Amino acid sequence: MAPQNGLSRRRLLGGAGAGVAVGAAGFGAGFGVGRLSDDSTAAASPTGGLDAVDLGQSIDFYTGAHQAGIDTPQQRYCVFMTFDLTASTSQELQVLLARWSAAIAQCMAGEPVGSVAPDRVGAVAADTGEALDLGPASLTVTVGLGPRVFDERFGLAGKKPKLLADLPALPSDQLRTELTGGDLSLQACADDPQVAYHAVRDLARMGRGVVNTRWVVLGFGRASAGPGQSTPRNLMGFKDGTRNIKEAADLDEFVWVDDDVHWMTGGGTYQVTRKIRMDIEIWDSDDVADQQRIFARFKQDGAPLTGKDEFDTPDFSATGPDGQPVIDPTSHVALAAHENNRGIRIFRRGYNFTDGINEVGQLDAGLLFVAYMNDPDHFIQLQTRLGRSDALNEYIAHIGSGIFAVPPAPEKGGYLAQGLFA
Amino acid sequence: MAPQNGLSRRRLLGGAGAGVAVGAAGFGAGFGVGRLSDDSTAAASPTGGLDAVDLGQSIDFYTGAHQAGIDTPQQRYCVFMTFDLTASTSQELQVLLARWSAAIAQCMAGEPVGSVAPDRVGAVAADTGEALDLGPASLTVTVGLGPRVFDERFGLAGKKPKLLADLPALPSDQLRTELTGGDLSLQACADDPQVAYHAVRDLARMGRGVVNTRWVVLGFGRASAGPGQSTPRNLMGFKDGTRNIKEAADLDEFVWVDDDVHWMTGGGTYQVTRKIRMDIEIWDSDDVADQQRIFARFKQDGAPLTGKDEFDTPDFSATGPDGQPVIDPTSHVALAAHENNRGIRIFRRGYNFTDGINEVGQLDAGLLFVAYMNDPDHFIQLQTRLGRSDALNEYIAHIGSGIFAVPPAPEKGGYLAQGLFA
Repeated sequence: MAPQNGLSRRRLLGGAGAGVAVGAAGFGAGFGVGRLSDDSTAAASPTGGLDAVDLGQSIDFYTGAHQAGIDTPQQRYCVFMTFDLTASTSQELQVLLARWSAAIAQCMAGEPVGSVAPDRVGAVAADTGEALDLGPASLTVTVGLGPRVFDERFGLAGKKPKLLADLPALPSDQLRTELTGGDLSLQACADDPQVAYHAVRDLARMGRGVVNTRWVVLGFGRASAGPGQSTPRNLMGFKDGTRNIKEAADLDEFVWVDDDVHWMTGGGTYQVTRKIRMDIEIWDSDDVADQQRIFARFKQDGAPLTGKDEFDTPDFSATGPDGQPVIDPTSHVALAAHENNRGIRIFRRGYNFTDGINEVGQLDAGLLFVAYMNDPDHFIQLQTRLGRSDALNEYIAHIGSGIFAVPPAPEKGGYLAQGLFA
Repeated sequence: MAPQNGLSRRRLLGGAGAGVAVGAAGFGAGFGVGRLSDDSTAAASPTGGLDAVDLGQSIDFYTGAHQAGIDTPQQRYCVFMTFDLTASTSQELQVLLARWSAAIAQCMAGEPVGSVAPDRVGAVAADTGEALDLGPASLTVTVGLGPRVFDERFGLAGKKPKLLADLPALPSDQLRTELTGGDLSLQACADDPQVAYHAVRDLARMGRGVVNTRWVVLGFGRASAGPGQSTPRNLMGFKDGTRNIKEAADLDEFVWVDDDVHWMTGGGTYQVTRKIRMDIEIWDSDDVADQQRIFARFKQDGAPLTGKDEFDTPDFSATGPDGQPVIDPTSHVALAAHENNRGIRIFRRGYNFTDGINEVGQLDAGLLFVAYMNDPDHFIQLQTRLGRSDALNEYIAHIGSGIFAVPPAPEKGGYLAQGLFA
């Protein structure tokens, strides 16, 4: 298995409270940050606790394996942006990816992408400056390539990743053109939103003349250090990510590509992003028993309706005194569960967002859903079921969407997707 | 002078690096967080440093003096929202302010505003739940009342604060109706945006039938723990707030009202908020020498063009070898300086924001400017000059605006603006 991207003891501390005893710092221990089960209740500090995130912490870009920002323990903020290619040659794309790679490595190291205040008279600064001295803040920038990179324009059709194609129309989709698609994606995650924004802004600036910005979401979310609480909550007030993939073996099985075009092997994956609107004002008027039926979880502690603890496995066959299933078969958890989907799993990174107040005067908010998988059909299968039947659909709508092939990270001296241009 | 709202040694640590030696914990020491001058360079930890903010920290609501969130050391995130009153009687407003007061006190203590998951079948939850166990995160919620609260509708005209009136049209204003005005304002600041958002969301929900949401901004910004860097940077990459008021005596002179209606005395003030768009993509194409001329500061370290250190006093009379003023009289610092405005000062809390991508495909970003003063005419005078002549106007536009009277905080057992209804 590829080495992990800068996992460290402090992420565990940051995610689960300064009081948690840390075991082995390897994958199994480090990866579970924010999703610790047994340990978190026992050893967590009092509610709130010291926020021990070290903003001086940096993560390596040049891993030579999969890009950082996928299995990296989830940072608190995310800026996700997509771009349309306006280039006319593959060489322009190649140069952009090479320049982006160098700049991403600098940003992740906490350095400006060039001079902030050059001495030369009349010189424009290479770096926009707003993240000066803010530290690396565990920044990761993950780059993806959309299906149209491989259309007739650039002569790259023969190197298209095997499973990369536009997503089909899915049940309940309410996609908006201006929030959908893109030829390139940047997912910048950091423990400071200004650090993430700075990176995307400077990369966008570097792309002028080659790419146009298309859509962007600023997301936030924090796993708490409180007792019994380590999974972040979405803006519906429910824990989100309890059953997410946590083990390296499952990443191997479901996330990293195995047999694909050569430039995707050694750590490539596919990224599906959805901007999901939540009608939170309507949701807030629903009674909690119904909310719990819809998720199939208790709101307070996140336990499945058939269990006592958050990480108990839901029992989809359990029936209540009335003979009816305890877990509604149209609940979100039931429809999304791998037990009910021939074992299919995808790996998710979710962030909350707010867009202020919408056109009808209600709070405009939702979930930025970024998922990684080695076969986009897994997302299509899951979302087809959810889009058709999910009881949650009354309160949410998928309004933005994108699909991207995510190549491995380069070795030092190389750049992203270098093999595509060989 | 009134006691301070929960200032503590840890704010100093959080703002200026864990390595800073802390002197007296009183006003003068605590208030300077993020703006320390001499100490910050000498004693700060390495770039980034440990983010020592304690998210378990809470601030008192019932101070009996001015509300928290004004001179409280600036937290990292802000949700600012205004509301239109739809009530028909002053009693409805009175009840809302009483309910808001109790709920704000709970949120600031890190508690939900009521049950998240009530046992009773069919019960709607009092609290929306997304901040459960996230800790108080130094939340403050500051409430203001706009001019129209005192129109003919509610019979409160006789108790209108002496200096509360709609702002006049100011030079360069590009205000949008949907981002301007409001009868009530909430400024929720916290070290976690989800905690701030939760508070505003639940207060808005509590106001259904009495108020409608009008406009909202989510702001962010972090003073760094890095060497030589303690003032936050705006999205133009410049330090913002270097010359802000720092001393209690100056707050007494310029912020707290002295002679006003009875319910404003004992800690009241006026709040002026502006949503300021920054054309950052155009700004980024300007050369740094010109950017520095516009601000009259060096970009890298924030020193005035006539000085060497950030906190050096600008010398507006200095001339260069060519006989021209070193500081352009149309620079932002020159026009805003109290030395050039008959001594007038206002107290500012600024946060960066991004609204994604605008209608012409450019990054949509700017500054949420919240200022406190004991005479709104001070803002009017300053912005009249700036709006007319500021070299920065080529790159910014004031697109949102509001003015509010901010009453003192209640004693325990009371509620905000209680004297208004006596």
